[in-house]
Amino acid sequence: MVILGVDPGCRISGYSVIYKSSTGVQLRQCGYLSMPATRTLPERVAQFHDFFKLKITEHNVTHIALETPFLGKNSQSFLKLGYLRGILYLLSVQHTLELIEFTPSQVKQALTGYGAASKEQVSYMVLKLFPTMTTPAKFDISDAVAVGLCGAWQTDSRLTYIR
Amino acid sequence: MVILGVDPGCRISGYSVIYKSSTGVQLRQCGYLSMPATRTLPERVAQFHDFFKLKITEHNVTHIALETPFLGKNSQSFLKLGYLRGILYLLSVQHTLELIEFTPSQVKQALTGYGAASKEQVSYMVLKLFPTMTTPAKFDISDAVAVGLCGAWQTDSRLTYIR
Repeated sequence: MVILGVDPGCRISGYSVIYKSSTGVQLRQCGYLSMPATRTLPERVAQFHDFFKLKITEHNVTHIALETPFLGKNSQSFLKLGYLRGILYLLSVQHTLELIEFTPSQVKQALTGYGAASKEQVSYMVLKLFPTMTTPAKFDISDAVAVGLCGAWQTDSRLTYIR
Repeated sequence: MVILGVDPGCRISGYSVIYKSSTGVQLRQCGYLSMPATRTLPERVAQFHDFFKLKITEHNVTHIALETPFLGKNSQSFLKLGYLRGILYLLSVQHTLELIEFTPSQVKQALTGYGAASKEQVSYMVLKLFPTMTTPAKFDISDAVAVGLCGAWQTDSRLTYIR
């Protein structure tokens, strides 16, 4: 099981690649994709597509883990999030990946035991589980690791952490 | 100039293919893509992608014309519309097409002279312009023809209609 956790955003998209085997769970890679505001929205959508298509083939990804989006104050941001999620949906079918979705509170609950935990708490717990990981520069990264972990946990939460 | 007008929807997506040359404007094709509700959303997104990718290559499309979406009562429908638009954004970059957007009132104004015209009025005018066209079975089709026409008109509104 190779899970690609994604926290999509129109400027910054965090991602994590998590391997789960009989021996345990391993964070193989995490980071973020930066899409400059100088590019047009279609260009950014295409950049997002190419980047994640490459990650999927590079790591032989089998699952994509995502957070369920909720409409916030800005409906245009919500729509743009739809553009990026549409790309992940397309890639999931093209590469026969399973899509797993978690609500933000499910992710927080799973990582910290508290459904309304702060991003700092989630980031702290991610570092506890993977101490060799350098402190994520952005919450987008720790959020992507968190949602990826939820994907790994959904079938079995008693796992060994390969550090 | 070959314009693909699209009225995307999660169940029914109307489309039109409009050729514009020095001799006039011609409606080459119009119709709709039906995406059964029995399919998963990712499957429908992929179906939408494959369908429009084929239309673009078949007709050597140069422009995609779309209506600007507005958030209605249902935020989930709005998000799903985002998935489909994201696919069109991707295709526009992959096939080097120009994207042209019009607000719903711009489309209505252009077709009927009245920005708050009904779908029936738009459909009526579409049939006036292209009398050989059979009455569109769905407003999704006449809406897609209307937005495609706006694309053809944006540079020159005094055109001959090749029927």
